[in-house]
Parts: sequence; C-alpha cells; structure tokens
Amino acid sequence: MTPNPFTKQYLMTAGPTPVPPAVSQAMAAPMLYHRAPAFDELYERVLGKLPGVFRTSNDVLAFAASGSGALESAVSNLVRPGDKILVGAAGKFGERWIQLGEAYGAEVVRYEPGWGERLDPAEYDRLLTENPDVKVAFSTLSETSTGIVHDIQAIADVARKHDVILAVDAVSGLGATELRQDDWGVDVAVAGSQKALMCPPGLAFASVSERALEFAASRDLDSPPTRYYFDWGRTAKSQRKGASPFTPAVSIFLGLDVALGLIEDEGLDDVMARHQLLARATRAGVAAMGLELFGDPDERSTVVTAVDLPDDIDGGKVPGGLRKLGITANGGQDHLKGRILRIAHCGYFGAFDIVTSLAGLEMVLDQLGREVEHGAGPGAAQKVFLEAGVPAAA
Amino acid sequence: MTPNPFTKQYLMTAGPTPVPPAVSQAMAAPMLYHRAPAFDELYERVLGKLPGVFRTSNDVLAFAASGSGALESAVSNLVRPGDKILVGAAGKFGERWIQLGEAYGAEVVRYEPGWGERLDPAEYDRLLTENPDVKVAFSTLSETSTGIVHDIQAIADVARKHDVILAVDAVSGLGATELRQDDWGVDVAVAGSQKALMCPPGLAFASVSERALEFAASRDLDSPPTRYYFDWGRTAKSQRKGASPFTPAVSIFLGLDVALGLIEDEGLDDVMARHQLLARATRAGVAAMGLELFGDPDERSTVVTAVDLPDDIDGGKVPGGLRKLGITANGGQDHLKGRILRIAHCGYFGAFDIVTSLAGLEMVLDQLGREVEHGAGPGAAQKVFLEAGVPAAA
Repeated sequence: MTPNPFTKQYLMTAGPTPVPPAVSQAMAAPMLYHRAPAFDELYERVLGKLPGVFRTSNDVLAFAASGSGALESAVSNLVRPGDKILVGAAGKFGERWIQLGEAYGAEVVRYEPGWGERLDPAEYDRLLTENPDVKVAFSTLSETSTGIVHDIQAIADVARKHDVILAVDAVSGLGATELRQDDWGVDVAVAGSQKALMCPPGLAFASVSERALEFAASRDLDSPPTRYYFDWGRTAKSQRKGASPFTPAVSIFLGLDVALGLIEDEGLDDVMARHQLLARATRAGVAAMGLELFGDPDERSTVVTAVDLPDDIDGGKVPGGLRKLGITANGGQDHLKGRILRIAHCGYFGAFDIVTSLAGLEMVLDQLGREVEHGAGPGAAQKVFLEAGVPAAA
Repeated sequence: MTPNPFTKQYLMTAGPTPVPPAVSQAMAAPMLYHRAPAFDELYERVLGKLPGVFRTSNDVLAFAASGSGALESAVSNLVRPGDKILVGAAGKFGERWIQLGEAYGAEVVRYEPGWGERLDPAEYDRLLTENPDVKVAFSTLSETSTGIVHDIQAIADVARKHDVILAVDAVSGLGATELRQDDWGVDVAVAGSQKALMCPPGLAFASVSERALEFAASRDLDSPPTRYYFDWGRTAKSQRKGASPFTPAVSIFLGLDVALGLIEDEGLDDVMARHQLLARATRAGVAAMGLELFGDPDERSTVVTAVDLPDDIDGGKVPGGLRKLGITANGGQDHLKGRILRIAHCGYFGAFDIVTSLAGLEMVLDQLGREVEHGAGPGAAQKVFLEAGVPAAA
C-alpha cells in the first residue's frame, strides 16, 4: 500500500492566484449576451467599482487580455518609433517594458540596478536630467519575479518634476500593496484580473489620467499610431457609452463583480493590512527556518516573498518537490531559476496558506538533504499571526 | 486597519467532509430526469461501483436520506416490537441504534462500556450467550463521536457463532478504515455519502446480505412490518430492474460517480493507507503538543482523532476559536462538549489539512492561555509524512 496524502492540490502561486468559491460560482452562471441589458448593468457596475481599487477618478479601461496586453496598450498609445523612453527594470516584469518599448521602435534608456534591487527614485531623477528628451518613463509597482515593491510614490514625484508621463505596471501589486494613483500622480497604471483581484486571467486594465490621454492624442497628431485593439481612445469612448468596443470577457466580468464586492466588504485598507500581515508572517517563517530573503524586501513587499534557496541543496528541485506534495508554488524565473522560491500571498490567501507553504518548504528541504527543524517556519508564522491580534478565541 | 487573514474557510469536519472540486463540478451539471436513459446509465454505473467499497457481492441499496435513514432501514427491516436486540454503544452513534431500537419497540440489551472505549467482542459473546433470544445485534465501525474504530471483524465472528444477524453502522468508516463485509461476514453495513465517499450528504446506503434479506422477509411473515420508504425488498427489487423506487438524489449520484472513480483511481488499499498515515501524523502532532488522545485509538482509528483538551483551558471555546480562524472543526458532542476536539481525516483530506488543523489548534490554545511551543504539532506531523516515504523531491 502506498499512502499518498499529497494528491489534494494547494494553489500557492502569485498569479493566477486562488479564486474564491463565490467568484467561481458567479462565473458558472449562464453566459450573457454582451449587447443586452443584463450585461450592460454588469459592465457599468464593474467599471464603476474598479477606480476605487486604483484610488483614482480615472475611467479604468478594460481589455479582454492578460496583463501584458495592458502593458502593451501603454506603450502603443504613448510611444512612437524613435522616441526616447526611460525604463527602470529590476526583474522580469520591468524588462517587459524594455521589450515592449523596443518592439515599438523606441530608444530605451535603461536603468537596470539588477534583479532584487529596489528602483532608486534618485536614479530616475538623474537619468531624466541627463535625457531631457524623454517624455515617458516606465516602472513597476510589484516586481513579481523578485518580490520587491518599488517606491512608486517617490518615482512619480520625480516624473512629475520632469514633466514626464509615468506608466506603472501594477499587475501583481494592485489590491495587494498600496497604490494611490491620483494622490501620487501616477499617469498610467495597468493591471490584470488574475492577481489580487482574485479572478482568472483574461481581463486587463489601464487606468489612464486625462493628462496621459491628452499626451497620447497629441502623439497621434505628430505621428500615425500603429494600434487598434489596445487603443485607449476607442475603449474610453465606447466605455463612456456603456458598451465594450469588442466582445468582453463576459464570465470574468461576472467573477470580478463578486471579487470587487469581496474587496469592498473587507475594505481596501484592511485588504492591504491583511497582505502586510501575511508577508510579515512569511518573512518570520523564512527567518525561523534559517533562510535568507532574496533582495531586500520591506513592509511594502506584500505580494510575494522570494526566499534565497540555500547553496547546499539543489534549488532547481524545490518547485517540483513541492508539486509532488500537492503545492504549486513559483520558483525563480530566468537566471533566478533554482536560486529562489517565491511564496505568494496575493489575493485570496489566508493564514493557513502561509503555514502550508512553509511546512511544504521544510519538507522539501529535508528531502533534498538539508537539516530541518520541522515546524520552525509554521510556528514562527503562527506567532506573528497571534501577535497581530487575531480574532480572540476567548 | 484590521488585518484579518482568517476569512478563508477550511472545512475540517468529519462530515460533511470536503468535497473534491471534480465532484462539485460534476454535480453542477444540468439536472437529469430520473426516468430517462442518461440517469439509467448513471444509476447502473454507480450501483455497480458501490459494492467494491464495501468489499461485498451484495447489491448495495441506495436511499435519498442521510446516514441515519439507512440505520433506520436496518432496524425497521429486522426488528419488530417486543424483539430483544443487542446494541453495543460506546458513543453518540452507537446510542443511535438504541434510540432506533426503542423507537421500533424493541427490548434493547445494552452493552455500554462508556464513550471512548472500544467495544469488546468478548462482551458481545457473553451477552449473546446470556440472551439466546437475541436474533439481531448492532455495532458501529467508526464511532465518530470518539474517534474509536471498533473491531467489527471479531464482533462479526461472535455474531456468526451465535447465528445472530449483525448490522453495522459504517457511516463514517466506509472508505476510511478497513471494512471487509463479505470476508468478515457482516450481514448489514450502512453508510452515507458525506464522509469518506467525499460527497454532500443526502445519499444513504445499506449493503444487505442474502441471509439478512431472508431474515427480514421471514420476520414480515411473522409480524406485519411498519415501513415503506426504507423497505429493503422494495428497493432491492426496483434496483434490480435498474430503477430507483422513489425519486433519487440525482445530483449526488452525479457526484458519487466521480468520487467512486477517484477512489478507484487511488485504489481502495491506498485510500486506507492514506487515512492511516493522516491519522498517524495527527496523533504525532497531538503528542508533540503535549496533549493526550481521548479514549484509546489504535491503528484502525483513521477517521477522526479525538484530542483530550487540557483542563487548564476553557475547552468549550476551542471550536469557536478555530471558527474565528476560518477552520471549521468538530468539538465534542453531548457530555464530551468542551472536553475534546476532533481532528478529522476522513475522505478528501491531504497532509496539509492536518498541518492546518494542528497549527490552528496551537493558536487557539495559546489564545486561551496555555503555554504553546508553536510549530511543534505541525512539525511532528511533517516528520511522520516524510518518514512514510512521500514522493521524493530529488
């Protein structure tokens, strides 16, 4: 007899993230025709709720696409061949801005301090001073590949000082770490449905300021655009009339309606506080296991915790080992493959998901030959949760 | 800001137990009319698979009812007013046989060694010797209220020796702990859909031997029966024609079809081994927390582990405290209320569910004022899982 208590699946990834049962149930509703009153109401309601999550008064444009589609919308609407743009990139998703800029023929001024580093606003300042012809800069809120959350507020200050449009990839960060788009003066924030918005992938968002829309329109006069599906103007105009310009991802709208309701019920501030607590417990668990964090996360880094895997084990085997235990977790990407494990706490995550991830990591490290004090990681996380003043049993 | 990482729900009860996603999905299929070919095929397939779980060649009779309905079927088909029956009861579900016997006017010879004790086959022997007019005896495979699994094989040997029909409540035990109905000579085994069969409640089963069917028929000749819905003969006759005598619980049949497929895929022996391992890890976790088990479970007790709550805390607050952490677990029933916590591992349970239950218990005990070494319980469970030779990471 071969007992295998590891067939039950625990999805512990930073995206797609676990989908709350109420969201899945809503998405199982009968399909709606998107040019009919039932969808019109849903569309209006969801579009009405979205700006609250961005803390903006912008219309939030919705595309049937994954997050990268919304990133592309920022580049295709703001950039023309030969334009000089500034990209700060300290991980895989920062680099996506570089790839997109180059795909659209831009001359990319690269600020690349290295994966795991935090983008330094002073470097944005220096590079924008050195390159006064840069009119658009790009950054990343939460760099999912490293767990670092960048100081977008400070970077936005710098961009505003140089009268530069700032576009921020908030795909994994939105709803998991602070983003105050209007207060901070972030011109463009793009996001996706499959991270802290707790829905399946397939909806992408661009929250675009009036200033950015005007800039995009002015560029269209300078030089003919090469875009259609991701055209901000077309989508904005259509949304204002209450209609999606193209066939919308109907079922994800059904799910997002429920998911945004869950966020409203919990309260966005409390959602942030929960993510902070989950991250703090994760960091405590990792420290109790005698492991180091990758890079230098601070209290903003509440989306995913990257753990530096010890050199004395074959780190490439950790994600596969966890998978054999039923836990799907993110390893490292590109050159971080085998070097880090990413423990996610983004969206529909609770305290015992952290306990499970830490317990699984201890077990796999043991299997790979490392000496492990079993329970140290979960126990440290438990203590953080208790000390945070969880609902009292007494 | 009030961080609350405890809203995500973890169902850790011994019934209804967690339902595998594939089962839920199957149950969401469009409703079938039960007098149509699509249901006929489903009905035949499910009834064809069920005897394998009982390890019997009997037809397994299916009722739209909860487990207690199947218990009642045993009493109403086998017992007449004034009959003397023997019931061994060492917990709430054993006592249900007494209540049912009395409801049907039987004179009940009670063997009640106390909650948490294991029923002694020698006592069955003694009482059947003392009461030669007893023709039907009752017992319980897994006493869910105490976690004890009784030695049905030995009790069945005694019953057979006295030529007594033995009816066994296997509601929570079936599929979670060994039951070899035909090999052991168990005349009647009753069960429900909502335990280790991993479905919602609403289907009850009676696996009735030819000998028991003949006995029931002979009693009908002696004395007119008072039953209709739970009549074994009616259901057996109807099932043999491929039709349910009454409207069947269609959606649970859809789910059970998938659930029985999951059991077949894992292999019934491996299902048992998994439950054994989950129980062993739970017991190790409890011991590492410095707590005692309630009663005297052995390696058969693989359904639920009853933990004796320490006297220095208010045990009545433990289930509510866990609920505030998002964990639904069973406290004690009746006079065990506040005295025990039952950690379930029955059906769709995996290793990290045990870790979660133990972590939650540690947290609640801490909240209730007990000194806790956080992580001791989860860590001990992790070690048991590893030592059992889990899928290798390397």
